[in-house]
Amino acid sequence: MKIIRFRHHTSEPLWGVLEEEGIRPLPGGLFGGGEPEGELIPFNEVEILAPLVPQKLIAVGRNYTAHAAEKGNAVPTEPMIFLVSPTAVIGSDEVIQLPNTKDRIEYEGELAVVIGKGGKDIPRENALEHVLGYTGANDVSNRDLQKKDGQFTRAKSFDTFKPLGPVIETKLDPSDIRLVLRVNGEIRQDGRTSDMVHDIPGQIAFISSIFPLERGDVILTGTPAGVGPLRPGDEVEMTIEGIGTLRSRVEVKLNS
Amino acid sequence: MKIIRFRHHTSEPLWGVLEEEGIRPLPGGLFGGGEPEGELIPFNEVEILAPLVPQKLIAVGRNYTAHAAEKGNAVPTEPMIFLVSPTAVIGSDEVIQLPNTKDRIEYEGELAVVIGKGGKDIPRENALEHVLGYTGANDVSNRDLQKKDGQFTRAKSFDTFKPLGPVIETKLDPSDIRLVLRVNGEIRQDGRTSDMVHDIPGQIAFISSIFPLERGDVILTGTPAGVGPLRPGDEVEMTIEGIGTLRSRVEVKLNS
Repeated sequence: MKIIRFRHHTSEPLWGVLEEEGIRPLPGGLFGGGEPEGELIPFNEVEILAPLVPQKLIAVGRNYTAHAAEKGNAVPTEPMIFLVSPTAVIGSDEVIQLPNTKDRIEYEGELAVVIGKGGKDIPRENALEHVLGYTGANDVSNRDLQKKDGQFTRAKSFDTFKPLGPVIETKLDPSDIRLVLRVNGEIRQDGRTSDMVHDIPGQIAFISSIFPLERGDVILTGTPAGVGPLRPGDEVEMTIEGIGTLRSRVEVKLNS
Repeated sequence: MKIIRFRHHTSEPLWGVLEEEGIRPLPGGLFGGGEPEGELIPFNEVEILAPLVPQKLIAVGRNYTAHAAEKGNAVPTEPMIFLVSPTAVIGSDEVIQLPNTKDRIEYEGELAVVIGKGGKDIPRENALEHVLGYTGANDVSNRDLQKKDGQFTRAKSFDTFKPLGPVIETKLDPSDIRLVLRVNGEIRQDGRTSDMVHDIPGQIAFISSIFPLERGDVILTGTPAGVGPLRPGDEVEMTIEGIGTLRSRVEVKLNS
């Protein structure tokens, strides 16, 4: 099923399941494990939100050979991980705000894994049992700061730099699905998850061998080739087969 | 006052204030802003815990000139930040578990800032109003993995790699205090916070210009010169003037 997070009129954020005519509430919340029930809420009464605010937001770098090559990097023998601030997350149909127009700021379309059950030292054979579902992500990155800092955290943690969504699909085989990112309708990235260097069970096993994965953690699983700059006015659409399309508009942040 | 987190018999973790004869409970918790009240709890009835589990754990690298130099690095013109997994936190009198004996794993004594009031784009003039208090930290780091990954997250996020404590001192001028780290009684680091490249108000202003600081965030403010290896059996004492001594014992993790 496709889980969506939303605000109904002025309610607190709620979770529900996408149906053709509207949203069926999940009274137990995202991790309650319950069934959708209650009255269908029409789409025109809700504001769609990012499907969750991650506990930890863990990113795996250089995980597609062609992308590593386009940036002149070798593929690491082990996953290269780093953390990004969960405060950077926005939902679909929200605005990516560029802090300025002089830095090169790029999109990176990615499949994101939502952890449903925490664990430490998870064996790869059981890894997918810890997954609640999958969603789309855009790992927006300031290349100038990424190079300057060496560490990727600042370059990737600005407010609005982590569009996530539009839904969490709980029934999905993530091993070979297509991921297409378009800017202003033009295809820029077109990859398949089967081209990952370290697959999703491998990533979960690796990360959880270092520190515990917790319920609500999100793993950004790396981006395929074709990354490029974002400019004010751009419309970005990140479509993952079986999940849907994460849409963002790009603007320059106005200083308040 | 010195705030301490503890378990009383089998209770949930509680906060209280250190008095000479015991701990006076803080019924409003760490961020409640209330006064200590109720019966004094004797030290022999409690287990002391890390003073908090951080929301985000933000580290500032190469923030003392002499330490940057000893590792052959230039001092960055802007603070170099990265995130560490909050799951690595342990309290005082707990064990740092080395994942193996072949990697070079080093101590880094640091002053840690606990954020009490969140904010974005905090001006440096108001920065200290966002601080609840200060505690000690040991930013234990696996140098082999730090070099291998380039990114510091893995090297610094192993379980038990972030001793924090022993208390949060809420009344402290952090601008020029002494920090001494001893291994087996021998002084290894002896620095003053006045030697920081970027002082605490500057760090808060910088970090909050990128992403919001939130209540419960902890900033590790960098380590002075003198870092060195930890070996099984080592006893580490990190003393910060006005806060107290954070104690750790070093062991090799036994594979379960």
